[in-house]
Amino acid sequence: MPKLVKTKVENEGRVTEEFTWVETPKTTVWDVEEELRVVGKPIARVDGVERATGAAKYTTDIQLPRMVHGKFLRSPHPHARIVSIDASEAEQMPGVRAVLHAFNLASNRFSSTRDFFQNPVRFVGDEVAAVFADSDNLARAALKTIRVEYELLPYVLDAESAAQENAPQVTPNGNLLDGKPSTYTRGDIEKGFAQADVIVEGVFTTNAQIHSSLETHACAVDWDGKMLTVWESTQDVEGIKDRVARHLKLDKTRVRVIASYIGGAFGAKFGAGKYTLLAAQTAYQLKRPVRFVLDRRGEQIAAGQRSPTKQYLKLGAKKDGTLTALEMTHYTNVGAYATWSPFVEGPARELYACPNLQTTGYTVFTHSFPFAAFRAPGFVEGTFALESMMDELAHKLQMDPLELRMKNYSSVHPESGKPFTSNGLLDAFQEGARAIDWETKKRRKQEDGIVRRGVGMASQIWYGAGAPPAYAMIRVNHDASATVLTASQDLGTGTKTILCQIAAEELGLPFERIGVEIADTQMGPFAGASGGSMTAASVGPAVREAAADAREQLRHIAATFLKKRVKDVRIENGIAKARGVEKPLAEIFRELDNLQVVGHGSRYPNPSAYEIRTFGAQFVEVAVDVETGEIRVERVVASHDSGRILNPLTVSSQVEGGVLQGIGFALLEGRVVDASGVALNANLEAYHVPTIADAPKIETHMIDRADVLANNLGVKGVGEPPIIPTAAAIANAIYDAIGVRFYDAPITRDKVLDALERMEIGA
Amino acid sequence: MPKLVKTKVENEGRVTEEFTWVETPKTTVWDVEEELRVVGKPIARVDGVERATGAAKYTTDIQLPRMVHGKFLRSPHPHARIVSIDASEAEQMPGVRAVLHAFNLASNRFSSTRDFFQNPVRFVGDEVAAVFADSDNLARAALKTIRVEYELLPYVLDAESAAQENAPQVTPNGNLLDGKPSTYTRGDIEKGFAQADVIVEGVFTTNAQIHSSLETHACAVDWDGKMLTVWESTQDVEGIKDRVARHLKLDKTRVRVIASYIGGAFGAKFGAGKYTLLAAQTAYQLKRPVRFVLDRRGEQIAAGQRSPTKQYLKLGAKKDGTLTALEMTHYTNVGAYATWSPFVEGPARELYACPNLQTTGYTVFTHSFPFAAFRAPGFVEGTFALESMMDELAHKLQMDPLELRMKNYSSVHPESGKPFTSNGLLDAFQEGARAIDWETKKRRKQEDGIVRRGVGMASQIWYGAGAPPAYAMIRVNHDASATVLTASQDLGTGTKTILCQIAAEELGLPFERIGVEIADTQMGPFAGASGGSMTAASVGPAVREAAADAREQLRHIAATFLKKRVKDVRIENGIAKARGVEKPLAEIFRELDNLQVVGHGSRYPNPSAYEIRTFGAQFVEVAVDVETGEIRVERVVASHDSGRILNPLTVSSQVEGGVLQGIGFALLEGRVVDASGVALNANLEAYHVPTIADAPKIETHMIDRADVLANNLGVKGVGEPPIIPTAAAIANAIYDAIGVRFYDAPITRDKVLDALERMEIGA
Repeated sequence: MPKLVKTKVENEGRVTEEFTWVETPKTTVWDVEEELRVVGKPIARVDGVERATGAAKYTTDIQLPRMVHGKFLRSPHPHARIVSIDASEAEQMPGVRAVLHAFNLASNRFSSTRDFFQNPVRFVGDEVAAVFADSDNLARAALKTIRVEYELLPYVLDAESAAQENAPQVTPNGNLLDGKPSTYTRGDIEKGFAQADVIVEGVFTTNAQIHSSLETHACAVDWDGKMLTVWESTQDVEGIKDRVARHLKLDKTRVRVIASYIGGAFGAKFGAGKYTLLAAQTAYQLKRPVRFVLDRRGEQIAAGQRSPTKQYLKLGAKKDGTLTALEMTHYTNVGAYATWSPFVEGPARELYACPNLQTTGYTVFTHSFPFAAFRAPGFVEGTFALESMMDELAHKLQMDPLELRMKNYSSVHPESGKPFTSNGLLDAFQEGARAIDWETKKRRKQEDGIVRRGVGMASQIWYGAGAPPAYAMIRVNHDASATVLTASQDLGTGTKTILCQIAAEELGLPFERIGVEIADTQMGPFAGASGGSMTAASVGPAVREAAADAREQLRHIAATFLKKRVKDVRIENGIAKARGVEKPLAEIFRELDNLQVVGHGSRYPNPSAYEIRTFGAQFVEVAVDVETGEIRVERVVASHDSGRILNPLTVSSQVEGGVLQGIGFALLEGRVVDASGVALNANLEAYHVPTIADAPKIETHMIDRADVLANNLGVKGVGEPPIIPTAAAIANAIYDAIGVRFYDAPITRDKVLDALERMEIGA
Repeated sequence: MPKLVKTKVENEGRVTEEFTWVETPKTTVWDVEEELRVVGKPIARVDGVERATGAAKYTTDIQLPRMVHGKFLRSPHPHARIVSIDASEAEQMPGVRAVLHAFNLASNRFSSTRDFFQNPVRFVGDEVAAVFADSDNLARAALKTIRVEYELLPYVLDAESAAQENAPQVTPNGNLLDGKPSTYTRGDIEKGFAQADVIVEGVFTTNAQIHSSLETHACAVDWDGKMLTVWESTQDVEGIKDRVARHLKLDKTRVRVIASYIGGAFGAKFGAGKYTLLAAQTAYQLKRPVRFVLDRRGEQIAAGQRSPTKQYLKLGAKKDGTLTALEMTHYTNVGAYATWSPFVEGPARELYACPNLQTTGYTVFTHSFPFAAFRAPGFVEGTFALESMMDELAHKLQMDPLELRMKNYSSVHPESGKPFTSNGLLDAFQEGARAIDWETKKRRKQEDGIVRRGVGMASQIWYGAGAPPAYAMIRVNHDASATVLTASQDLGTGTKTILCQIAAEELGLPFERIGVEIADTQMGPFAGASGGSMTAASVGPAVREAAADAREQLRHIAATFLKKRVKDVRIENGIAKARGVEKPLAEIFRELDNLQVVGHGSRYPNPSAYEIRTFGAQFVEVAVDVETGEIRVERVVASHDSGRILNPLTVSSQVEGGVLQGIGFALLEGRVVDASGVALNANLEAYHVPTIADAPKIETHMIDRADVLANNLGVKGVGEPPIIPTAAAIANAIYDAIGVRFYDAPITRDKVLDALERMEIGA
């Protein structure tokens, strides 16, 4: 019988207490030195072939007979009251099944703070109406016939302006999330700055970054009168199930959510979208399947973004580099809608042992594009500023930037004072510096030619602890193959692969004989959202527990056939063995016609006396062409501590993807908006996601050491950490190359040329 | 930890020993007198609406992009060697993807006794080639271009002829299954007949009965490079999974079989068909989805049938009716293919306490239509003969036929001597006789008019014990609804409904809040084939165990919130209660964000000291029109002992369906074959399945009493029993009406007219 355990759950910097129903643990952590057979090996993704060949069926591939297609009409104005909507022409078009808008919806309430069709509209792209028709083209044609009368209202696009008292109001509750800035203080900031020998200050800005997933937000819904099946490209099938069930007032046993393959998510695909709930209610009403796929423009303007920030940063330090004070204020432009704030002050608060610290965060609504979580939300933006500022401080102190960081290393969590379960930051510094040859390169003289090279580094802290609740099952088939079942998701990170590895290791079966079914709420037991770098460390331990449970059952069964005591039986490579005897499991099963072995596992709570964090450092070499302003990242050495490495291949994929997205954030990506709030580059042509041509040599150097206090795998997350330090490391390398510090990301070519001109460098 | 238990499994009269991996039982049987809340109530089927409205998706509804369609070419000859096949034209047709036949298949082996394309062919309808093409019509067109050269061989269609030594050979191992007749003897048959005061003898024949399921045999297969998904209209998803995995040499974790809805089965849909395996291997090779649906003619000639029998029966009895000897020989024509023999001698051996008995069964291969299990295989045929003969004996003894049966009632199993867990036969006699007013009606004088009425009865014995292995899970959702999961099937019998009832009862949740997922090998744990009237008594107890497991977990959780001891907490209608306090489970779950409760159950073994059988009796009133020969069954009183009634609605559906199919067997259904072995009525127009116009008033009188020794539900099966006695009861009623005994089923109008003419009765 499981036990009810009260646990602390930390997510996006917020701590909540939850009860969890957990089994008594059956496993302890694999020893750091333990020789593992499958875990830790560079195994190619189990779903790689079908993804590459097109056989994998994504949400957008779901086509059902009599399907109805949904489309949104979006506002052309940043702030306007909808006076009237004339949809009569659309409604009379043959094949148009429903036209929904603020004036005809039975309930317009989408969430506690947001309507399906907000009136007044709050940004250029806000949903004004939805059409459901027999084809996509017909829906599009019908949209064009809808006449909307708007009364234009004053608007504000900029966060700092919107935070002013007399600014146009975005929400009825004002323009600040929670009505006030969030503040945090430790020590005495004034005393701290008074103690400082050196003070540096900077004002940083970061632009929006758009997820730009190859698969836009999409769902397909089928209601057969008994079960509502939702295919959704989502990071959280259970969350969608919960939301859809509540929206339609259906029992959860009547709702099934499937997300077999996901074409990119990066934080933007957590909850049910407006399109999801409207598709579900339309399918339910029409008794016909409904498909709703956001088009690319809709995806780029309305599906969320990493919000722009403005950050004021001030650091004080003694001559020896010891930080004495840190003050930080940020304005984060969450646009028209947000329910929580990206933790931009996180790195400032957690990365270094600074005794005196004060942060003030303004999370500001504007008539602009809404916020959504994006890979390490807040930390990417905050680290760009903090680690740029640290670099500037090092130069002012004439210290090695790496030495400055080591000087301020904190062996305990700076806020709670608790020890970390593990902290590989110093190891990451050492390994990264060795790999890039920091000692030599940092002393390299600034060059004079057209292409000037520089080296820079930055470090990173992030969460990445897993947490309950997460549950898993292992079903052993009668041929002694096995299937892992859990309602988790694989965003493309390799979740399926590592879960198979964990199961194979613990069961004593060959890796190839493990199958996996995830992301179907009807198949697997509950697992939480895939996000926050939490999946491996949340679901992985539950899978190991389930496998251990199944393995024990297999050992009991095998003991009967080997005529040995259970404790003497082990399973290796699918063969039950005891002293002097052995028998393949498949043979035992043949004698045990149709016996079913199912193992169950749950994720037990984290130790409360410790903090769990991931750490890392990146070292970057750049080449700046002072004639064209082109910045070429030539090499990135990424050294991260994410505990035990389950699979070097999937981990290096995460590192490479994170670094590349970090390069995009640092150099290429940004929203271009005109004065009327219209996005000018809401597509994949004009919005520059880095391509393979932008990719540097990325070297992954993991501090592969089991975090024996964290969980039974010794694993911490790796999805988000690699994107965090990249931009600052690049900016610092650029400074090293040309002596120019850039405070505004992305550091585009025009900014470089402009700065070079000011500095009278270049052609 | 479950335990490994050795169990005896009985199926179709055969006993095998198996190990089963079972949990320690958490439940005892509900007491006979216990007041149940959901179980026993006449609840409409949970899948009734979607079946009636067409929303339910059957196998034949599965359409996938790029689907390839399969069709068979069938032999026009009953026995012929295929000399050559020229498929070149078909192979060159654009859109034809594969043409398979005996000369080009890599492996032609379908089973240990049968090839995919048998050469020589063995019946008119044997598969000669298969075409896979981009459309159904194209496949059909391609079939027509295939030129086959046959060398005709001598053939034999009749079982008794085929059993002769010089008969044309059907199989290389001769024409008798197992090479010899099956024989059984108890007591001394000669002594028995010597003791008899009266001896009756008869030769009976029964014609083929064709399942005629509305949904023909069908499958759809999709191979995505990782998982082979098979949709199949089947009684045994796990069996198909096993077979397909072995055929393609795939791990079972790579095969998924789904049979969400089944449009009729009746015993003909157990294993993977040739079409299934060929579709699977073609999908695997082509990497395209494949659909293979038997057309109606293929269904009626090649998908199996209740085999024709010829039965020689001889009964001896004392003046008081006590049976002294029974001798029976049958020839059962299993056509071209069979792997086991319908147990035609079963009723003779098991129904009465006859001390001296001898049976000889010839299961004979002929160049005719292959055998498949059909609802109570053997027992329907055997009971027609036995219970007609008993009626004749009663009349010869001038005894009440009912009294004769009561006289020979056996309170223990006549073969093993073991007691029955329960035996409601005497109750069924009493209840049926009361309902039809037997005492009055049996004394009714034969009428003289054009329409002459009569009354008759017959009784029945059958298996219907469940057995391990069967496993189930209950997943409790966070809104306190729950889902039952097991890889069983619902053939239309109401399995889904009764499993929900059992779960609701045991969990203490409202019936409406229980969902169910069955017939998907990837979702639920193992359950066996749905057949042999075993499902309710096999899977039902496992579901109850799973629910009890979940309920205990819920009580533990609730105790924390009610601040009471677990033993004082109960759950009623979704509310956790203890003295003075209560709290809805849904509220508790809201405080327990995303906690997962899963209950597991397994089916534990049956008691080995007992025999488990179902019993019943049917009383029938018929009206015979002596001018037209029309026999109208006017009323059937069906009184059956199947233990506890889980749902009177689904049970009476089974009874009504069984009786109606029994009427078909008795009066309407039969294969018409010409001298060359060609079926002349292989369709639904000329083959007469009874329609609603043929339906009498059918009154179901169940002996609703829990079989407390059988299993934790006290339930026995009810799928097959109702078809067993119907034909004999009708024949006996006809005798009562017009004084003519018919020995040949079906008793069609021409036979009646012919007999009336011989008897000089009628116009």
